[in-house]
Amino acid sequence: MKRKTMTTQEQLQQWHELAQQLRVDSIRATTAASSGHPTSSMSAADLMAVLMSNYLHYDFDNPDNPNNDRLILSKGHAAPVLYAMYKAAGVISDEELMSLRQFGSRLQGHPVPVLPWVDVATGSLGQGLPIGVGVGLAGKYLDKLPYHIWVLLGDSETAEGSVWEAFELASHYSLDNLIAIIDVNRLGQRGETMLGWNTQVYCDRARAFGWHTIEIDGHNLEEIDRAYSEAIDTVDRPVAIVARTVKGKGVACLENVNGWHGKAVKEDQVKDAIAELGGERHITIQVQKPDEQAQRASTGNAQPLQLPTYKEGEKVATRKAYGDALKALGAANPDVVVLDAEVSNSTYAEEFGEVYCDRYFEMFIAEQQMIAAAVGLQVRQYKPFASTFAAFLSRAYDFVRMAAISRANIKLTGSHAGVSIGEDGPSQMALEDLAAFQAVWSSTVLYPCDGNQTAKLVSEMAEREGVVYLRTTRMATPVIYSPDEEFPIGSSKVIRSSDRDQITVIGAGVTLHEALKAYDRLKNEGITVRVIDAYSVKPIDVETLHHAAQDTNGNLIIVEDHWMEGGLGAAVLEAFTGKETAPNYEGPQLRVVQLAVRDMPGSGKPEELLHAAKIDADAIVEAVRSLLKQPVGV
Amino acid sequence: MKRKTMTTQEQLQQWHELAQQLRVDSIRATTAASSGHPTSSMSAADLMAVLMSNYLHYDFDNPDNPNNDRLILSKGHAAPVLYAMYKAAGVISDEELMSLRQFGSRLQGHPVPVLPWVDVATGSLGQGLPIGVGVGLAGKYLDKLPYHIWVLLGDSETAEGSVWEAFELASHYSLDNLIAIIDVNRLGQRGETMLGWNTQVYCDRARAFGWHTIEIDGHNLEEIDRAYSEAIDTVDRPVAIVARTVKGKGVACLENVNGWHGKAVKEDQVKDAIAELGGERHITIQVQKPDEQAQRASTGNAQPLQLPTYKEGEKVATRKAYGDALKALGAANPDVVVLDAEVSNSTYAEEFGEVYCDRYFEMFIAEQQMIAAAVGLQVRQYKPFASTFAAFLSRAYDFVRMAAISRANIKLTGSHAGVSIGEDGPSQMALEDLAAFQAVWSSTVLYPCDGNQTAKLVSEMAEREGVVYLRTTRMATPVIYSPDEEFPIGSSKVIRSSDRDQITVIGAGVTLHEALKAYDRLKNEGITVRVIDAYSVKPIDVETLHHAAQDTNGNLIIVEDHWMEGGLGAAVLEAFTGKETAPNYEGPQLRVVQLAVRDMPGSGKPEELLHAAKIDADAIVEAVRSLLKQPVGV
Repeated sequence: MKRKTMTTQEQLQQWHELAQQLRVDSIRATTAASSGHPTSSMSAADLMAVLMSNYLHYDFDNPDNPNNDRLILSKGHAAPVLYAMYKAAGVISDEELMSLRQFGSRLQGHPVPVLPWVDVATGSLGQGLPIGVGVGLAGKYLDKLPYHIWVLLGDSETAEGSVWEAFELASHYSLDNLIAIIDVNRLGQRGETMLGWNTQVYCDRARAFGWHTIEIDGHNLEEIDRAYSEAIDTVDRPVAIVARTVKGKGVACLENVNGWHGKAVKEDQVKDAIAELGGERHITIQVQKPDEQAQRASTGNAQPLQLPTYKEGEKVATRKAYGDALKALGAANPDVVVLDAEVSNSTYAEEFGEVYCDRYFEMFIAEQQMIAAAVGLQVRQYKPFASTFAAFLSRAYDFVRMAAISRANIKLTGSHAGVSIGEDGPSQMALEDLAAFQAVWSSTVLYPCDGNQTAKLVSEMAEREGVVYLRTTRMATPVIYSPDEEFPIGSSKVIRSSDRDQITVIGAGVTLHEALKAYDRLKNEGITVRVIDAYSVKPIDVETLHHAAQDTNGNLIIVEDHWMEGGLGAAVLEAFTGKETAPNYEGPQLRVVQLAVRDMPGSGKPEELLHAAKIDADAIVEAVRSLLKQPVGV
Repeated sequence: MKRKTMTTQEQLQQWHELAQQLRVDSIRATTAASSGHPTSSMSAADLMAVLMSNYLHYDFDNPDNPNNDRLILSKGHAAPVLYAMYKAAGVISDEELMSLRQFGSRLQGHPVPVLPWVDVATGSLGQGLPIGVGVGLAGKYLDKLPYHIWVLLGDSETAEGSVWEAFELASHYSLDNLIAIIDVNRLGQRGETMLGWNTQVYCDRARAFGWHTIEIDGHNLEEIDRAYSEAIDTVDRPVAIVARTVKGKGVACLENVNGWHGKAVKEDQVKDAIAELGGERHITIQVQKPDEQAQRASTGNAQPLQLPTYKEGEKVATRKAYGDALKALGAANPDVVVLDAEVSNSTYAEEFGEVYCDRYFEMFIAEQQMIAAAVGLQVRQYKPFASTFAAFLSRAYDFVRMAAISRANIKLTGSHAGVSIGEDGPSQMALEDLAAFQAVWSSTVLYPCDGNQTAKLVSEMAEREGVVYLRTTRMATPVIYSPDEEFPIGSSKVIRSSDRDQITVIGAGVTLHEALKAYDRLKNEGITVRVIDAYSVKPIDVETLHHAAQDTNGNLIIVEDHWMEGGLGAAVLEAFTGKETAPNYEGPQLRVVQLAVRDMPGSGKPEELLHAAKIDADAIVEAVRSLLKQPVGV
């Protein structure tokens, strides 16, 4: 990869012309759209011109070429400069460029992977570098290919803690394939950034976090060239190029002026602005394809899948079954990669890590970085499973939201859900995760109640697209299913039913066992209830719920170890509504009782907390009695 | 505050005895509980013994004394050492100490403010220091009192990006009242931390972030004493004391051994362990009360509240009305403090900032730190309003979750909600915020549709306890309410109704206006619908919804600019269920249509995106027709 830097005047002039074109096109496209971020694009134009002319190795005809460098626009609002680069690379027309931000255009306000050359959505700041760490891990440790990951950051976004999670993990993993270019244009959306043009402090911080740093004038083409050359020659550590730039560079009235963030140049000013930049150009350059034509390294040979099995009646925590199944999956699928946030002995991800240490990445207590790394790994077609306490996945909710916009395929497991964790108290209890994960586009939400069910669902997760979330339980619960049972996503299990069922009780996970206890007690009293295991919370099994409501006079009791809002209860209720058009439920009027956590729990034994929250068998029995007391049709 | 350090042998011995007691009590309490974190407590015992003996100024009889120092146990799992300190301070009995982690005990697995001396809940790592920044802002800029904020951090938690947000903001605001004590015991939950005992790197990083650093042996009492003395003498910048410690210090079989995180010493080992620490002690020490008896500084005089008003028919964005109202509130309530994450010209928080700059804190693009600062400010009884794009509040979801456990009173505003933002695209659109905020304990969720309503709700937010969330809209919407109208939280407005209403349409915010358009079109066709403005999403107006369902044959259409899951639709559906007992809705069978966002949006004009998402007037009209086509009682 070593490259001699013999910059000729001719080269400099070519780069300059290209940079000016990127600026002009950023202005033209945003003015056509009447919105967008020209000035943030203009500060980065020189950096991008040199990058695409001489350093980026990318096969635009084959974005999936494993040898391709990756370019991540962490400052996603600078989308115009990226799209202008695509025009300069000859892969989009000037006409398409001018469709920026229009309804139906691929060129959205911030980049999304509906464009084949965009790997991940950006626009929520501070996410591009952490995702770059994920791609870097893939490149160095899995693919074992020499491509580079170039990440263009804004200076404002370095205020995000997630950027420092990326800094620390990238140096921990010695990611010398990762190059951060920080476009220090001094101005954020509403004024000066915390550090202004103090590029020295940026360098000090990056160095303290273990990075090699290069401080440059981001408009000096020779300095940019030398910096890139030095960056790709750096070994053993990631590189931060801290580039002092001018926002709006090239047009005097825009340069370094506050109040020009996210504003298009008005029609009547645009002609002068373009003239000042030397006019319109339509240069096309040939971006270099990768030198290598290698394949990614092998991560093992697939063995037949042998999921763990548990005997009915024995007790096993679903988190333990997750670990067991993940290890089994590791043998069967060499693309499975596992990440954990320093709690792998609690989530049981350690079982995988002990055997497949080459495909296991400790992310320490940096949940945002963990999710971002998962997104980065799936860019390179791996199947990342990431785990921590379910409560702490809330730390990375914005990353999950953005993963959905990235159309990423990631599998997340949250352990220690609900009050049933016991003594550790509410800070460690996830009581909002079912709501949060259901409200993610493309998501699947699974909540198993026993070991065999967990194992089957883990194996289904591997094949499921989108953001797939599995909720596991800390405490050991009885195995109730045979290892031969199947648990398709979107289905459910009717585990107790008769022709005389008066009420349907719907539970999942730990509350399913409470429902079974309640069933036994009620049966002794001569009351029969139907019990449904709604292990697939999203998609929920609409058909089975409709049938049950029809069979049991519309009486439903939903019981969940989660806040009342947005969890299993909400999923069940939504199964009875129409979307766009009238609902298709035909049956008796619903009479629904929701049992869920309503008061803030404290510490205690799991059974004490389940009882106090009124989500145990006692509460179910009481709810059944209450429903039976109320005459139908009131 | 300057203190001479004349450490005598007697003093050292006293400190040592106290530290050993803290260790013994940490072991005793966790063994009694059969769970908990003795070894993480033991590493910090010497640091805490010297702190409480000679540096902490705290009036245990009056936790609200404004002159009190604050101690935040960021490493919340070390709760046993905190509770042991309370025993040593004479404010809890040995008997209560032994109730650790039992059901009903105030001494939960991680500290919560059910204890009067605990200001905020901890246990989700990396939150204590950011909250300390908030208290530090209050102390230095609002209270103007010389108290210190001591924050004990674990080394593992410095992996959290939020810790670096705190580092950068604390130095930006020159918080010389903030002292971070990092307990570098080398071992995390499952093995060595990223940096192990490399205390030098911790110091380099903290210094690069603008802090004064002091590196010590965390078991050398004289070094600890000198460090604290130097820390309180430091001006203009926060101080990080990086203390090299040994996990499990004092008991040979626990010292520096992996696998002892979060484990109680077994009954049969406990006697030897306590003996090794010199046996049980029951020392009580008098913690020094604050030297000062000052009152907090004045933040202004309350003027009568003069909310902005808007003329019916004019167009104003609710985000703009938020800014206007916030400024008005600033005059009326000197306790109102405003924070924003570098988008105040979009959220309009800048209107407050321009006038009340002493009570306005720019948090830059660090949403986690922003929420944590709000929590810290309300510790000192201020009323923090924090704002950013609603989408980016998802970045701080874990902080919101923990704020609820802290019983914090914070007011959050998320602007640019939904697809109606238009061209910027999905990364900037909050489509999950109603779900996420509803699933927070103690939360209130408000979603106004016009300027006058927004102003009234902002004023109600100031008085509302818990986590209060206001969702605002980017685009200007017509003013439909008189400035005299009241909008109580928990209520709603029936804005179109007649005796012949066939269907109820429920909207809020931007979709309310679509409902009104649909109403007009349907009326022209001879179809009358009831229109409800559900501006209070949580608590929802159950009574009005029940009446409407009764009056309109159970036909409900809910329309929202949010994903289908967990939003307004879920809130409405839950209004018809029983909680614990049978539901009290008496009326015709519900037939509900939910109109919500289901496909991933792109860029476009607001009206194009509302139409594409099928949440505009067209979609409402279609849904009405679909419901009317379906015979009732099917």
